[in-house]
Amino acid sequence: MCTGTGRAGSGNPISVGPQAATDSVVAAAGQAAAGAGQVHVDLVLVAMAGMSAMVRVEPMRERLADAGVHGPVQLGSDLLAMFCSGTPLDRGYALVGGTGSIAARVEAGQTVRIAGGNGWLLGDVGSGFWLGQQVARAVVADLDRLGPATALTGMLLDGLALAGGGSHEGRPAVLVSLLDTLYRMRPVELARFAPLAFAADPVAEDIRRRGGQALAELLAATYADGIEGPVVIGGSVARAILADQDSPLTGSLAGREVITVDDGLAGAAVMGLRASGFPVDDQVFDRLVATLRELRGFEEGNK
Amino acid sequence: MCTGTGRAGSGNPISVGPQAATDSVVAAAGQAAAGAGQVHVDLVLVAMAGMSAMVRVEPMRERLADAGVHGPVQLGSDLLAMFCSGTPLDRGYALVGGTGSIAARVEAGQTVRIAGGNGWLLGDVGSGFWLGQQVARAVVADLDRLGPATALTGMLLDGLALAGGGSHEGRPAVLVSLLDTLYRMRPVELARFAPLAFAADPVAEDIRRRGGQALAELLAATYADGIEGPVVIGGSVARAILADQDSPLTGSLAGREVITVDDGLAGAAVMGLRASGFPVDDQVFDRLVATLRELRGFEEGNK
Repeated sequence: MCTGTGRAGSGNPISVGPQAATDSVVAAAGQAAAGAGQVHVDLVLVAMAGMSAMVRVEPMRERLADAGVHGPVQLGSDLLAMFCSGTPLDRGYALVGGTGSIAARVEAGQTVRIAGGNGWLLGDVGSGFWLGQQVARAVVADLDRLGPATALTGMLLDGLALAGGGSHEGRPAVLVSLLDTLYRMRPVELARFAPLAFAADPVAEDIRRRGGQALAELLAATYADGIEGPVVIGGSVARAILADQDSPLTGSLAGREVITVDDGLAGAAVMGLRASGFPVDDQVFDRLVATLRELRGFEEGNK
Repeated sequence: MCTGTGRAGSGNPISVGPQAATDSVVAAAGQAAAGAGQVHVDLVLVAMAGMSAMVRVEPMRERLADAGVHGPVQLGSDLLAMFCSGTPLDRGYALVGGTGSIAARVEAGQTVRIAGGNGWLLGDVGSGFWLGQQVARAVVADLDRLGPATALTGMLLDGLALAGGGSHEGRPAVLVSLLDTLYRMRPVELARFAPLAFAADPVAEDIRRRGGQALAELLAATYADGIEGPVVIGGSVARAILADQDSPLTGSLAGREVITVDDGLAGAAVMGLRASGFPVDDQVFDRLVATLRELRGFEEGNK
């Protein structure tokens, strides 16, 4: 059973750097162990995004010990953790659509084929970044009269508190302000406009349909004959697209068992138990997920 | 007639900053006036990319005077200069496809409608950045088995001196190296891969066809009934696409007078003469262009 949880800032070494990611992991582990004094565990399994090669195990072990959590540290894949949050089975598929997008096939408890995860500039079609960029591009094209008029324009300009008429060299002055505002942001921040892709508007509908198509293709690229298993879907964007009955993603999953998960936390625990030689069957998995849900409900209630 | 030319580094205040852009302008003007002692002119017309609002006129006037070029300074549009490099007419159209892409309609010697120029993240379809990004994305998709196999993959990997077999979590190790290399570059540097879009390969052909279609649409967005005039085309990418007889851009220009130009230098001189009250007719224009060509040939020969 799950006896403690914790939550801290970003643990993604690519976006915040290995130092800050380690700080977050240590802070969250410290919260999870709080009130239990010095905790000695068989293993600390850290499921971490991206190139976990950026993070060193030994300094993390020392920092965790300082925070009262003692035990050997092992790094694991956050994508596999997402899969393991959804099922105790050792084979199947995972699709994660958050700021980025990535899919994997799992066999014998390992990711044997990964597709996508190539980042905002070179891949990640159907991700939150991609949806947000498409929304921003559609608004720019509308204002520049290069694309169809769309309700997204008013929504985006309102959201950024931009307004006003007037023109500059035959283009709306507000377009100049919008470009200025958007280029001051880091590119990946365009992901914050992804929710607009779910607005009731034909241009938005086209964006989310293409995003769903791309996620369906990403997942299909990992399929192998003879490997059935469930499809575990995580990430707010993939789940929002999945909730749309008309999405090509939803259609492509007909006849498959689909499990949605919030994150990879339960899966990291599953991986940790297995790596310590403790088998995780249906009963253990169900108990772990149920007690984790209870603790998190308590955590939410305490906010 | 043209009596001197000069060439220095980037004068784009957006990409190199206003200070470095001013340095380049002063260096080039100094070269143009070299050997003539202190030069007093009616006007220094500086045709500058992007938001020339970033550059202040007074410090530039002082810096130019220090370099021996005395006269009032006026900033102008580099897009209009490109148009004026191609024709002495005061109406028509301009299309520039370099790292970015932009088009304009000119009436009475002024740009009255500008389309595009919205930058690599939010527009610039059909530009050098866009072509290069499409090439890089196609190669990443090929290596990730998410897209068709393409000869571009070998070309790009060779160009970056990346090679090697092996795989990492079910994906080629060379894909991991490629992503690492490309994400270390500034995004706009992807424009250096634009030439690969002109390779003899079906995937490259599709990229340049879509690029040509986008440039044709960009230009068409500036068309107005009753304004015929020539279409002046500049920028290495737009001219390369135009050279392809099968390109949608080439097809869209059937029946129109098309003039290609190397840059906006002659046009800046035309704008300077006009702003000083000196009319530029066909004869003056032809003489200016011919003497400029002669000086530049001399400059090339001296290299």
